[in-house]
Amino acid sequence: MTAPGTRAAEPAGTPAGTLTGALLIGASDVHGPGGELYAADPRTGERLAPAYGLAGPDEADRACALAWEAFATYRRTGLEERAAFLETIAARIEDLGEALVERVQAETGLPRARVEGERARTTGQLRLFASVVRSGDWLGARIDPALPGRTPLPRPDLRQRKVPLGPVAVFAASNFPLAFSVAGGDTASALAAGAPVVVKGHPAHPGTSELVGRAVRRAVQEHGLPEGTFSLLQGPGSTIGTRLVTDPRIRAVGFTGSRGGGLSLVAAAAARPVPIPVYAEMSSVNPVFVLPGALRDGGAGLGRAFVASLTTGAGQLCTSPGLVFALDGEGFDAFVDAATAAVAAAPAAPMLTRTIQSGYDAGVERLAGAGGVRTLARGIEEPGIAACGLPGLFLTDDDAFLGDPSLQDEVFGASSLIVRVRDRARLREIVASLEGQLTATLHATPEDHALAAELLPDLELLAGRVVFNGWPTGVEVGHAVVHGGPYPATSAPATTSVGTRAIERFLRPVSYQDVPGGLLPEELRDGNPLGLRRRIDGEPGRD
Amino acid sequence: MTAPGTRAAEPAGTPAGTLTGALLIGASDVHGPGGELYAADPRTGERLAPAYGLAGPDEADRACALAWEAFATYRRTGLEERAAFLETIAARIEDLGEALVERVQAETGLPRARVEGERARTTGQLRLFASVVRSGDWLGARIDPALPGRTPLPRPDLRQRKVPLGPVAVFAASNFPLAFSVAGGDTASALAAGAPVVVKGHPAHPGTSELVGRAVRRAVQEHGLPEGTFSLLQGPGSTIGTRLVTDPRIRAVGFTGSRGGGLSLVAAAAARPVPIPVYAEMSSVNPVFVLPGALRDGGAGLGRAFVASLTTGAGQLCTSPGLVFALDGEGFDAFVDAATAAVAAAPAAPMLTRTIQSGYDAGVERLAGAGGVRTLARGIEEPGIAACGLPGLFLTDDDAFLGDPSLQDEVFGASSLIVRVRDRARLREIVASLEGQLTATLHATPEDHALAAELLPDLELLAGRVVFNGWPTGVEVGHAVVHGGPYPATSAPATTSVGTRAIERFLRPVSYQDVPGGLLPEELRDGNPLGLRRRIDGEPGRD
Repeated sequence: MTAPGTRAAEPAGTPAGTLTGALLIGASDVHGPGGELYAADPRTGERLAPAYGLAGPDEADRACALAWEAFATYRRTGLEERAAFLETIAARIEDLGEALVERVQAETGLPRARVEGERARTTGQLRLFASVVRSGDWLGARIDPALPGRTPLPRPDLRQRKVPLGPVAVFAASNFPLAFSVAGGDTASALAAGAPVVVKGHPAHPGTSELVGRAVRRAVQEHGLPEGTFSLLQGPGSTIGTRLVTDPRIRAVGFTGSRGGGLSLVAAAAARPVPIPVYAEMSSVNPVFVLPGALRDGGAGLGRAFVASLTTGAGQLCTSPGLVFALDGEGFDAFVDAATAAVAAAPAAPMLTRTIQSGYDAGVERLAGAGGVRTLARGIEEPGIAACGLPGLFLTDDDAFLGDPSLQDEVFGASSLIVRVRDRARLREIVASLEGQLTATLHATPEDHALAAELLPDLELLAGRVVFNGWPTGVEVGHAVVHGGPYPATSAPATTSVGTRAIERFLRPVSYQDVPGGLLPEELRDGNPLGLRRRIDGEPGRD
Repeated sequence: MTAPGTRAAEPAGTPAGTLTGALLIGASDVHGPGGELYAADPRTGERLAPAYGLAGPDEADRACALAWEAFATYRRTGLEERAAFLETIAARIEDLGEALVERVQAETGLPRARVEGERARTTGQLRLFASVVRSGDWLGARIDPALPGRTPLPRPDLRQRKVPLGPVAVFAASNFPLAFSVAGGDTASALAAGAPVVVKGHPAHPGTSELVGRAVRRAVQEHGLPEGTFSLLQGPGSTIGTRLVTDPRIRAVGFTGSRGGGLSLVAAAAARPVPIPVYAEMSSVNPVFVLPGALRDGGAGLGRAFVASLTTGAGQLCTSPGLVFALDGEGFDAFVDAATAAVAAAPAAPMLTRTIQSGYDAGVERLAGAGGVRTLARGIEEPGIAACGLPGLFLTDDDAFLGDPSLQDEVFGASSLIVRVRDRARLREIVASLEGQLTATLHATPEDHALAAELLPDLELLAGRVVFNGWPTGVEVGHAVVHGGPYPATSAPATTSVGTRAIERFLRPVSYQDVPGGLLPEELRDGNPLGLRRRIDGEPGRD
């Protein structure tokens, strides 16, 4: 362990799986002087070594300074070089092997299959962004050639491409220790855009963060990139987090977490002398609407499938179905009964942290005590689990729901509220009353399609993703996905934090007027040396 | 004239060029009850009939209610229908003929050629957005087909397109009474995106606004669109403007004007229960850098060309060159002398309003009195002009400039400050000290290219458009232009308010998962019935 506040280059021989408790500030290991943090195993409550020395203001300042210094070089890396860098990060994460899986499990209590799946998603995501970088489409290259003979005035030569905003601060999420953490979607898309990244690791999984952070650093070194391309800090959001967001060298922020946390970063960023965008993915209850035909044809099966979605990852997913609106009538009782039985038979599961668990317990208690709300079932207690999350299912009706806006509040965990809706008019009233969401889901048979067609225009304004006859959990990482949505689901409804469009968050267009060929960025030069798809006078193609 | 607060359908026979002083709230003429406004001819000071009855809260509320009602229908208009609507607006503006040109001149004092040119730009802009709408590229259609056999989990069918955010409030600018006013770039791009528009007309040209507003309304009626697709209000920004921005049915804001005005809208929008984006194009001094070779080869000619750009539109352009940095050495004196002579010979010109003129005079006085600043020349007084703007040219050096940040402040009008820069190191220091800008301009001969190459990476981070060997005034309306830039030039640096990318400001992506074919929006259906360019698994083309 390095002494507090001192910096040393990483010992060349540190094995990939070794944990030191250090912050990774560029190429240096720094034992932060701002207090100590230990991870805990939520299954057992056991404290996990090593101690993490938290960052103080100097460490945050140093990481930002290095990131700014790196920006000038890193943003001008070639497409192939940058893509290969992202692929090396993926390979170095895979190199961590069992050591990573075990540490993630120890710090999160997540089952092995989930951790392995999330690792595959994370490395797949990095490789997907490598392919995005290579395509060069994200540069948005456009050329409006000069028209020297145009009257009354000649037209200049105008060329446009996108440039990165600058270094990005990434706030890692608790619930995706790999896919939305140190080398997750925000980091991958920011690095793809040409932006150095300073990560604030989540305090729930510092060892996972260090392992992955070292993998990223190795990739930085292998590719000879400036050390400030990547840094990893640990520390409280209220001090280090705010400091990062207000540092003048940070030019954008990616965040996944609570509404309170996200909004405080949004406020801090807006109050800067030069405000910056905060892409905060905050909270969503992911309403599910079960229409009459679907209830009649599949009531009980739907009830079981719903609970399978609800209890995935102990309900600790941004897209967990926290509200289900079902039209009263044939199949309604079968749906509710099956869901009730499934929850009653669902074992408790470890939650990510004690804090998350106590927040969940408070949310469930509030819901259970709300007027007009009946508890349908709780899961099976598992006394051996330290941070034990007990599934919960609740029932209310449309009157109570419309009368109490707090019933829309997210309860982060495996809790959901079924709302019995008397008729279609009420259903539309409810849709109109809902806050912005990441997802909205419809269950409908062909006989429900007329009603579905009526609802769809409202649902597409309500949510970032509309799901048909499925469940909102399980977010594909691809080209057509949107993981985003109207406020308060996110602070930036026109963006997505998952999928290839995520790169757009960190870019802005610049126009070059009559710039001589030799001084133009390569992607805008005559002859199209990079072989990009470019728009010429608005018409896309490869010129 | 209609009685205050009453509403009446537009008399069928109202000739196109008739001014009534009414607000245009959907299909109704309303004489606003919130006080009266007269335009004034800035050339003579003469008050221009008719009196405009200003909007109160009820009028704003009614316009927003109609816009929200229209949104459901208007956003679902077909591509051809919407494109034709934009073209009809252009045609109806042209139909106004001389009446429009004369009224614009009377209200703004702008010369005829400028007004005719701006009208052509405005109608051209509407037709350009019609072509954008027809192409359908703005929908960003993407399909990631289902992979039912994928392991460990099948992939659902995911399709993505963009939808409009909702009704848009447009704040018209004083300085482009046509191209950035009632049917200007913000309105054209919002209507193109499928967003109804509520315009707050600029008080400097209410008659122009009414004429153009009636042209838009005619187009709405000819195409059988809901009346709320367009409304025109007149009233103070501090009351009606704030009311529009905080109305829950308004979902985005376009603004061109002062920094103070823009920032107050940004603050109001951020404080809403559901914040919305404000696209404010605010202020810029458009630095020009004249490098040694350019000075030596063309000093005097550059000085004259600079003043021609500076005095365009009495300097009342967002892209007016308010700061010129020239390296001391051969040609510097010739440049300064020629510019000084040109300003001394430049006649005063009417400014848009008395308020703008007094702001200009105060700015010039502040500049003239600043430490280390010398007045090089003022233009020729024209005692006959009521709101008379006298060009001004000032000189300072790099020490004084770096020592007084207020020398960067915009003086809206034909005033500019030349800064004598001792060497290249100082020039780079100056670039680093500048606020975000709409434009940055370099004058360079081939021998300057090494220095230009050093500066370009900084300039592309500083500004939305980098100009070579030209002047920043004159903004092309095309595909590759950016009229935007880092804060405080705009409140949304990743966007442009001119050119085809402007439509992106009013859209957000939505993803559709496993939605049955018959319920999908037409643009995402199998068989590509609209013949769009769509991305299939990320690969662009016409499937």
